[in-house]
Amino acid sequence: MDFNQKRLEKQQYVDDILKQYMASSDYKYDQIIYEAMSYSLMAGGKRVRPILMLTAYEISGGQNTTEVEAFMAAMEMIHTYSLIHDDLPAMDDDDYRRGRLTCHKKFGEDIAILAGDALLNHAYEIMTEACIHREPSLIVKALLAMKEIATAAGTQGMIGGQVVDMVDKSNINLNMIEFIHLHKTSAIIEASLTAGAYLAGASEEEVEHFRSIGRCIGLAFQIQDDILDITSTTEVLGKQVGSDHKNGKATYVALKGLEASKSEVAHLMKKALEELQQLQGDRKEFLKAFILYLRNRKK
Amino acid sequence: MDFNQKRLEKQQYVDDILKQYMASSDYKYDQIIYEAMSYSLMAGGKRVRPILMLTAYEISGGQNTTEVEAFMAAMEMIHTYSLIHDDLPAMDDDDYRRGRLTCHKKFGEDIAILAGDALLNHAYEIMTEACIHREPSLIVKALLAMKEIATAAGTQGMIGGQVVDMVDKSNINLNMIEFIHLHKTSAIIEASLTAGAYLAGASEEEVEHFRSIGRCIGLAFQIQDDILDITSTTEVLGKQVGSDHKNGKATYVALKGLEASKSEVAHLMKKALEELQQLQGDRKEFLKAFILYLRNRKK
Repeated sequence: MDFNQKRLEKQQYVDDILKQYMASSDYKYDQIIYEAMSYSLMAGGKRVRPILMLTAYEISGGQNTTEVEAFMAAMEMIHTYSLIHDDLPAMDDDDYRRGRLTCHKKFGEDIAILAGDALLNHAYEIMTEACIHREPSLIVKALLAMKEIATAAGTQGMIGGQVVDMVDKSNINLNMIEFIHLHKTSAIIEASLTAGAYLAGASEEEVEHFRSIGRCIGLAFQIQDDILDITSTTEVLGKQVGSDHKNGKATYVALKGLEASKSEVAHLMKKALEELQQLQGDRKEFLKAFILYLRNRKK
Repeated sequence: MDFNQKRLEKQQYVDDILKQYMASSDYKYDQIIYEAMSYSLMAGGKRVRPILMLTAYEISGGQNTTEVEAFMAAMEMIHTYSLIHDDLPAMDDDDYRRGRLTCHKKFGEDIAILAGDALLNHAYEIMTEACIHREPSLIVKALLAMKEIATAAGTQGMIGGQVVDMVDKSNINLNMIEFIHLHKTSAIIEASLTAGAYLAGASEEEVEHFRSIGRCIGLAFQIQDDILDITSTTEVLGKQVGSDHKNGKATYVALKGLEASKSEVAHLMKKALEELQQLQGDRKEFLKAFILYLRNRKK
């Protein structure tokens, strides 16, 4: 089976898990919240974060993927909540996401705020439930996985990066941009890998290798986003092109230029591959191919 | 020491815990998020939920309150996040809360959305950390406490109630109002008590007694809010009086009348006290007095 087929198969697997772990209710008057959550959660997307988590779990010797499923679903729910809230009028004010109306355009701002809140909360609910049912000797490792995710999603990660991305841009410098990239994007990609490793019972040393790989992929991924925001088309990207640039957002490309940015992406992906070489295990091929796939992505 | 002195002492203890568990950063450009989180978290309030949790923990025989502190802080952070998001222009659009400007009026809508998100996320981060450090034999009980809180905060609880509270009110009936009260207010009060009990290692039977007590207190608490919205003054209440009534919100009082609502509060609080009688333990006096205090509250 070729890489792309494998990747799409894993993507489908993530979609199936998401449906399985979505919340639901038999009551009549609260259905709109589940519709809004599903609308954004099932809007497609490459499912990069859960696929990375699964891959790290497998490389670290995990044998039973049901052990990682709740955390994969949780990770994508956290990613989706952050997109819903980022798109709100008070934030980036975007009308389109993944080629369709953003959650607040479709359901109204009030429901979009609550749908984001609900996805974030549900992520922790299903991870907690999964920890309860883990065999006793591995509960602490599962909790360490949840801790990685929580730290990466909070003010020491994604939210902290988002805040600095919103401050006055007149004095922006490369250090601030690096802070934004490390916190807003890398942290959660690192956590996808480290959580997967912890769930397989990996050692601290192994976890740290995955953290380095995640940091390289995450930084490259964000610089790519900035590049694509300038060079791609709305049709390919599924959201407005140049919107970050137009909003005066700090981008790596604006400060370093397009060519230097492209080299940095290549350099970071190379570093990720070198770090991967240092890991043990015979199931590294997919992650290697996945890193190359991310390097070459067009949206 | 009289009850009110004890209550204020516990309130101060909660404030101290909140300061201890708040997130912080040494970076310069992200300080505003911590300011906004603290502004709302430390705005006063009666700290009803963490005090109930502590009380259930003590009645259930808990001996070391450091075991429950992270969960007390988390509960108040979750309560505060829900207030910040409820106050947003797209939701209730309130300018004042606890006698001061609401979070978005003070820091802007974007920061208020993120401050709410950050408090919700941080709540889970500190609970997860606390579970990791619990002695192995009690980790599952601590996870069950976290699960109670997560379920009560999500679409099966607070968020679900909020959604139904927002739907078209032209066909509102008493069943819907009860759904709203049970989900929006009772669920999290129940969870405060059940989580406290679980953290002390309580049995399922004991936990269910606390759930019944929480349900009665929660329902009474919400009906009281509706009563106070009509009968109190802005000065006493610290927020606009009649705002729920004016916004056409479904209230128990509007459907049942003021006198019937007052009797229902008295009836529910009596039921809570009867349920409390059925619990073992010699540390029930404070909870009994606290229920009487809640019954007579003026704000």
